[in-house]
Amino acid sequence: MSPKITTELLKHLRQVMKNPRYVQEPVQAYIVPSGDAHQSEYIAPCDCRRAFISGFDGSAGTAIVTEQHAAMWTDGRYFLQAAHQMDSNWTLMKMGLKDTPTQEDWLVSVLPEGSKVGVDPFIIPADQWKRMSKVLRSAGHDLVPVKENLIDTIWTDCPQRPCKPLITLDLSYTGVSWRDKIVALRSKMAERKVMWFVVTALDEVAWLFNLRGSDVEYNPVFFAYAVIGMNTIRLFIDGDRMMDPAVREHLQLDSTLEPEFKIQVLPYGSILSELQAVGAGLSPKEKVWLSDKASYALTEAIPKAYRYLTPYTPICIAKAVKNAAETEGMRRAHIKDAVALCELFNWLEKEVPKGTVTEIVAADKAEEFRSQQKDFVELSFATISSTGPNGAIIHYKPVPETNRTLSVNEIYLLDSGAQYKDGTTDVTRTMHFGTPSAYEKECFTYVLKGHIAVSAAIFPNGTKGHLLDSFARSALWDCGLDYLHGTGHGVGSFLNVHEGPCGISYKTFADEPLEAGMIVSDEPGYYEDGSFGIRIENVVLVIPAETKYNFKNRGSLTFEPLTLVPIQTKMIDVNLLTEKERNWVNEYHQKCREVVGAELERQGRHEALRWLLRETEPLAPVQ
Amino acid sequence: MSPKITTELLKHLRQVMKNPRYVQEPVQAYIVPSGDAHQSEYIAPCDCRRAFISGFDGSAGTAIVTEQHAAMWTDGRYFLQAAHQMDSNWTLMKMGLKDTPTQEDWLVSVLPEGSKVGVDPFIIPADQWKRMSKVLRSAGHDLVPVKENLIDTIWTDCPQRPCKPLITLDLSYTGVSWRDKIVALRSKMAERKVMWFVVTALDEVAWLFNLRGSDVEYNPVFFAYAVIGMNTIRLFIDGDRMMDPAVREHLQLDSTLEPEFKIQVLPYGSILSELQAVGAGLSPKEKVWLSDKASYALTEAIPKAYRYLTPYTPICIAKAVKNAAETEGMRRAHIKDAVALCELFNWLEKEVPKGTVTEIVAADKAEEFRSQQKDFVELSFATISSTGPNGAIIHYKPVPETNRTLSVNEIYLLDSGAQYKDGTTDVTRTMHFGTPSAYEKECFTYVLKGHIAVSAAIFPNGTKGHLLDSFARSALWDCGLDYLHGTGHGVGSFLNVHEGPCGISYKTFADEPLEAGMIVSDEPGYYEDGSFGIRIENVVLVIPAETKYNFKNRGSLTFEPLTLVPIQTKMIDVNLLTEKERNWVNEYHQKCREVVGAELERQGRHEALRWLLRETEPLAPVQ
Repeated sequence: MSPKITTELLKHLRQVMKNPRYVQEPVQAYIVPSGDAHQSEYIAPCDCRRAFISGFDGSAGTAIVTEQHAAMWTDGRYFLQAAHQMDSNWTLMKMGLKDTPTQEDWLVSVLPEGSKVGVDPFIIPADQWKRMSKVLRSAGHDLVPVKENLIDTIWTDCPQRPCKPLITLDLSYTGVSWRDKIVALRSKMAERKVMWFVVTALDEVAWLFNLRGSDVEYNPVFFAYAVIGMNTIRLFIDGDRMMDPAVREHLQLDSTLEPEFKIQVLPYGSILSELQAVGAGLSPKEKVWLSDKASYALTEAIPKAYRYLTPYTPICIAKAVKNAAETEGMRRAHIKDAVALCELFNWLEKEVPKGTVTEIVAADKAEEFRSQQKDFVELSFATISSTGPNGAIIHYKPVPETNRTLSVNEIYLLDSGAQYKDGTTDVTRTMHFGTPSAYEKECFTYVLKGHIAVSAAIFPNGTKGHLLDSFARSALWDCGLDYLHGTGHGVGSFLNVHEGPCGISYKTFADEPLEAGMIVSDEPGYYEDGSFGIRIENVVLVIPAETKYNFKNRGSLTFEPLTLVPIQTKMIDVNLLTEKERNWVNEYHQKCREVVGAELERQGRHEALRWLLRETEPLAPVQ
Repeated sequence: MSPKITTELLKHLRQVMKNPRYVQEPVQAYIVPSGDAHQSEYIAPCDCRRAFISGFDGSAGTAIVTEQHAAMWTDGRYFLQAAHQMDSNWTLMKMGLKDTPTQEDWLVSVLPEGSKVGVDPFIIPADQWKRMSKVLRSAGHDLVPVKENLIDTIWTDCPQRPCKPLITLDLSYTGVSWRDKIVALRSKMAERKVMWFVVTALDEVAWLFNLRGSDVEYNPVFFAYAVIGMNTIRLFIDGDRMMDPAVREHLQLDSTLEPEFKIQVLPYGSILSELQAVGAGLSPKEKVWLSDKASYALTEAIPKAYRYLTPYTPICIAKAVKNAAETEGMRRAHIKDAVALCELFNWLEKEVPKGTVTEIVAADKAEEFRSQQKDFVELSFATISSTGPNGAIIHYKPVPETNRTLSVNEIYLLDSGAQYKDGTTDVTRTMHFGTPSAYEKECFTYVLKGHIAVSAAIFPNGTKGHLLDSFARSALWDCGLDYLHGTGHGVGSFLNVHEGPCGISYKTFADEPLEAGMIVSDEPGYYEDGSFGIRIENVVLVIPAETKYNFKNRGSLTFEPLTLVPIQTKMIDVNLLTEKERNWVNEYHQKCREVVGAELERQGRHEALRWLLRETEPLAPVQ
């Protein structure tokens, strides 16, 4: 992976930062956030402006370019990747480390007095605007909205915004009709005395209308906004996809409906003017509900006194708690996904010793096996197929320049998942196709102990996920090891593989309490720079737990693994496990055997079934 | 404990809320916070306004009185106590429970349109003002400062503000002179480009000048403010205590000093006008540093553009990291404290079966034994001496109406501590003087497992204390039990028994990372309403840990118990302990024997020594 040469690009950007054609006044700094106008984590190629200007294409990062400097903030998952992808014009700001300045503090330290800092108001979330603007103002600078995106002005071969056909999901997948979702949303709005709700996140629009798209790779979403009133529904969406008879039927666009369920379809680009019109027509006490992460542009469309901002929208919270149809779909998806991975690992075991399997070949083979499964749509994120030192690059994606051949001498880490019409998967397994070293086994076993500690944790109703994060680290900490990422994220149901409002992280304090029906990942790891990476990840469902004393009827929760893929026992140092942990592994493997074994049998995949049976033999007793 | 009858008082308060002699405009609600003008947790009798108006005298709680309602917000430690102490005029708002509204939301729900909500601007912290004011304003109400405290106007027999003599501490106790502390503070101010620092917290004033007082029971502080400039030191303090030659000598008030160390002594009541003068005389870029918990009144004295507010002041952070002299003092204090408790428990063991020892008698006896120790000053908080069901009232303090006799049939919980000139102690032990039931032992053992999990935890440098909180709960959670309070608080060095900026709690996310030299408590518990309470509390020192891999030189930390009082082995179900936990108990008891045993020997306390030796016998092996 050679870095992108950005000298000319930066020169060009610095010119437009002073060009009155694009900016009212020259800006001394320009911020290029990661997201799109919907604050999406995964974005369409036309929105990859930060990657275009810097070369760094990880999923999280913010670039700031001043007349003298170019700096990139990203988190521990991406320190190595960003350092590899950026040239010497760029300074890497390692977020989460003690001495790393915030973007605001850094700006204050480098800018000349009375500077203007520009940003696209559609790309920056309102809460971030507020925070940055306050710090900059108190230091004598100004944060200013620059209507024309300055990256777009220098990006001559910028791709078109995608506009792909939609998929309609019936009740067997969603469990609840879009009409009932609108009814529930309006009842939440009435509770908060709010008259309007603006849906800005793409997965929230998709979930609300039981539609899916493919405008953004890996995320089955489509570019749209919605504005829901107590008696109106406005959907802002482009293209001829609303001409599709299946979509028209699904949304009942041609039916005679009660007016409050009649969907008005408007152009995507008209959201700002329509919202400004809503804002201008509000009577006193008519509040408009927006996420506090909605763009500054849309938030400003509503006069301040009329805004009702919350960190998580009622759709985000409702979407996180999966109903029975969604949970069953997720279970089915995970069984199919396990079938594909049993095939893959069985195949790798035979092929790796031949020295012909590269990281890319292995990733492609994983996709091939997944695509053979029913209702497969696409991958749910770029497959992390990494061997040896590449495994230590936490969100590594193999490209020809870095592509390494799997061997019997190195640890192989595969973090991958898929979108099926009935659910979304995300699983990491770390394998050795030869003989792991004692140190590798030791580290793997600590990670496994952390994985089990979270998966088997019992906690009272109302507990937030971040309170479980340290359980995942305790065994590593005891030996002076740690990992620089969170332990888990929410997972959508045939939707984004990362979703709020719950998670398991030392960083996330604004998370909502875990509830039965929520689905999160459990993925501790350990990374040795230049040598190897280890991660063990299951997707787990929050379920009620049975305890001896039941928290005085407050009730309690635990997790049920949805992922059912063997954890390589060869990598486990059994002597480091407690009896409880050993039993957990054996019971987990027993369930893989029964559930996935039956499906392998049904699909006639006998060789993979034999592999599964061998890999799920009970652990040897502790010596 | 019968509730305070508040009908007349509330009637009276509601009258003054409309009386133009006290309020510019009538206020429809009046907030009575817990604190004093220094946002102290423990307050002088003259500042106990919330207790006066409501009857509830726990250490934390906010009262709000409207024309129709009177409501009290407090946390899980005080639910039972508040319910007992308040009459039916009051509604108890249980903070931390899901359905409890915030004060702001409740006000919005009960107030008529366009209401005024009054509060004493010296009592409400600026950050709280800001938060409440914002919510109230957005709902069409106004938070207004009421200069005259309305409780004081109806409190006819309000006690005088105390003004007791000061104690000077020399270097052997403090390790650092006040001059050097001023130098260090000014260097922090220079780092942040701040010209003035306002010291508002009483323990910060005391720490900075190496002085102690006794204006507030249990807390060796005195009423004072300080304003530190780059070249000036102003101390705002009343009374003739500045006439004490020892104090004058200590502060070098009569010496010829470099002007930047010359202390200017001003009346306590002149702080606002002096600060307003400072605020009016600021040139551009001259910032004034205040805690964001300083009172609204003082914060408003500085124009907004000139304020530099932080949640923790540099004094708070410096004070938390104890130097060698302070750490050694804390060790000495804890050994003396353990001697007193060995005497007490030995005495209780003999006396309890006679049926003559009440909770108050036991608390007095504990104080008597402590007062025999060198450099004893006073208790560090009201002794929680509670038996049977009283133990479930988390911050119980025995009074004649509730005073229960200790017996061989009930669990006894003693949470107590003292101020010695060399250190502050805080220890909880839970004892049974007869035969505990299997259930009592089971609960005790889970609490002990939680205590050990925190005490023995190893974690990387930079970890915040709240990340350790769940370790204390895990064993309880597994069986469906929990406790409704945090796990630990910072402890001062001959200062407040509760201090910031570190702690171990599921609630504290603004805590500063733990550092070697910080001192916190480790005190999980379990409470069965109406039956018993269990808590095991040690004060522990953060120390560097040795680990196999040392976090790639990031370094790691763990805790060393300073408290050295036996944990009653009779209460332990050894079969529920892991081998590691059993070893921890045995090693802890071995250390109690060696260290406290030597001191008991030295003090000729042979009977208590025999008690100690018996109570610290190694645990029986697991069956």
